[in-house]
Amino acid sequence: SRSINLAVIPGDGIGQEVVAEGLKVLSAVLPQDVKLETKEYDFGARRYHATGETLTDGDLEQLRRHDVILLGAIGDPSVPSGVLERGFLLKLRFAFDHHVNLRPSKLLPGVATPLAGQPEIDFVVVREGTEGPYTGNGGTIRKGTEHEVATEVSVNTAFGVERVVRDAFARAQARPRKKLTLVHKNNVLTFAGHLWTNVFNRVAEEFPEVTTDYIHVDAATIYLVTDPGRFDVIVTDNLFGDIITDLAAAVSGGIGVAASGNINPGREFPSMFEPVHGSAPDIAGQGKADPTATVLSVALLLRHLGYDAEADRIDAAVAADLTERVGKPARSTSEIGDALAVRVAG
Amino acid sequence: SRSINLAVIPGDGIGQEVVAEGLKVLSAVLPQDVKLETKEYDFGARRYHATGETLTDGDLEQLRRHDVILLGAIGDPSVPSGVLERGFLLKLRFAFDHHVNLRPSKLLPGVATPLAGQPEIDFVVVREGTEGPYTGNGGTIRKGTEHEVATEVSVNTAFGVERVVRDAFARAQARPRKKLTLVHKNNVLTFAGHLWTNVFNRVAEEFPEVTTDYIHVDAATIYLVTDPGRFDVIVTDNLFGDIITDLAAAVSGGIGVAASGNINPGREFPSMFEPVHGSAPDIAGQGKADPTATVLSVALLLRHLGYDAEADRIDAAVAADLTERVGKPARSTSEIGDALAVRVAG
Ligand SMILES: CC(C)[C@H](C(=O)O)[C@@H](O)C(=O)O
Ligand SMILES: CC(C)[C@H](C(=O)O)[C@@H](O)C(=O)O
Repeated sequence: SRSINLAVIPGDGIGQEVVAEGLKVLSAVLPQDVKLETKEYDFGARRYHATGETLTDGDLEQLRRHDVILLGAIGDPSVPSGVLERGFLLKLRFAFDHHVNLRPSKLLPGVATPLAGQPEIDFVVVREGTEGPYTGNGGTIRKGTEHEVATEVSVNTAFGVERVVRDAFARAQARPRKKLTLVHKNNVLTFAGHLWTNVFNRVAEEFPEVTTDYIHVDAATIYLVTDPGRFDVIVTDNLFGDIITDLAAAVSGGIGVAASGNINPGREFPSMFEPVHGSAPDIAGQGKADPTATVLSVALLLRHLGYDAEADRIDAAVAADLTERVGKPARSTSEIGDALAVRVAG
Repeated sequence: SRSINLAVIPGDGIGQEVVAEGLKVLSAVLPQDVKLETKEYDFGARRYHATGETLTDGDLEQLRRHDVILLGAIGDPSVPSGVLERGFLLKLRFAFDHHVNLRPSKLLPGVATPLAGQPEIDFVVVREGTEGPYTGNGGTIRKGTEHEVATEVSVNTAFGVERVVRDAFARAQARPRKKLTLVHKNNVLTFAGHLWTNVFNRVAEEFPEVTTDYIHVDAATIYLVTDPGRFDVIVTDNLFGDIITDLAAAVSGGIGVAASGNINPGREFPSMFEPVHGSAPDIAGQGKADPTATVLSVALLLRHLGYDAEADRIDAAVAADLTERVGKPARSTSEIGDALAVRVAG
């Protein structure tokens, strides 16, 4: 009999609330024969204040035993910028080699977009997750003086670029339009840019059916607002991916519906799924947060584990729910979760 | 009597056409007593193919003798990516210490924006121009092999950050809303991020009237499409500035009207003014390019030299011209230039 051994990290702020709804929908969609085991972990600001710890080796060892991880949100204004980001979120991505950061953008019917004319948007960003400017390489000398120098080193390897580029080609190959766009800044960042471009062109030969193109990251932000329909799959570096996926989320319905996966495709380590939004402390505990992004992250989680039919049911339920929202009064976090749970079970 | 000794670099593609109109408007707006001397320089793809040169020490020595530089566009698909960017554009910015890269974004009445609801947009980005990931620091080992490693080093100094931050505060102070936003990614790029944040907070004390805030670059792209009215002046690093100013141009009327200045505020070296758009080889030589961005760059140039009244006249002429365009058939490059020249002279 099948089973899913899930680590649950509600985290800070609205994380608690949205994860509860994600689990509700997960339980509702899973077939009877799939045994769902969950274990909750207390990470984030509360734990940091209580113990000074963000993510210990022991924590990593425990998390490693799970098949997969669902995260709500980590972050609170009471913790200095960078502490939880570097000490928890990025540490986990690096420790579990989450080199494919998957962020789909689809503008669903009835969903508001800041763009005029309700354009068609349906693309996926494959963001590299373990290299680039995110490695923490760099340093500071003469800190706090007028002679301070601070460096940040973007580290890019053929190994790291090739595996994420190949993953992106495979995803493009599996989609109807079969189009892959490399986003970089190879006219300025020529060392990393040439590596990315050369690897991309080499791997392209293995995927003759996939149409390819290249766009500089600055120009990509223009297309994302003037012609987002041109994108099918995008592959890009860690930092560029961070930037353009927030923009992509904004144009395709907002971070309330943006899901993401931090994926280790070979499954040597558990992958982690989370909404793109943060902990939103200003609305925490009020039942106002939209759990849709978390529920869509659960769909990505299921797809990663091979439960495609169940993931499809969630996607369909969300699409239907979003369409029916139009013109209706706002519902609470749990009302939305309940409605989605009913739909996926039905 | 007053004089302007201008270096003109038409460059590639539509550069020639738009610069001609920029000069037309400049001549028309200048008072009789100002002597305008211009010298044209041949840089870009043609020169590169003919001589292999992009910008020599001798070129720099000649350019240095001018008060100011007007550039059309540099770049052509026949030249490998990076050659003209690093060999000309960036070389000039670094050689002439253009540390303030000024990019205003104003959505003028009648101008189309991809955003729904025609929001109010009127902000200025002060992008650092001589540091960050643009220094060319970095390298490649084992090039072309499966063991290739490529690095890009972002170099940030207290000296470099402080001067651009101070410039941005002064600009914010001079505007009605007096608001300055720092855009960075200090939760991930903690070395450079802390330097920027600390310098920003320190200089803020000298400008008590200026309201300040901080936004991560990824979140900034969201605000630029959902609430661009929140920005007044933005100060940011070289690469983040590159990315968000293209997005800013897109939402505030497109790169057809986006102007920029590469400024050396102390005037030790000539500053350079240029449209944000590129050489657009696909429409070059057809009289289709909109010279408005170049004309607005001429206004920035005049403001830099202290000709504020003349700069205001150009801005007003462009605003009137854009409003009157609505619903009319497209005009040629020179028709638009003629119309603007008539307006500023009138
Ligand atoms: C919180 C931060 C570390 C993170 C990132 O920069 O990757 C976030 O912006 C994201 O996109 O998941
Ligand atoms: C062409 C390129 C070198 C340049 C840059 O990256 O600065 C351009 O994108 C710009 O914004 O002026």
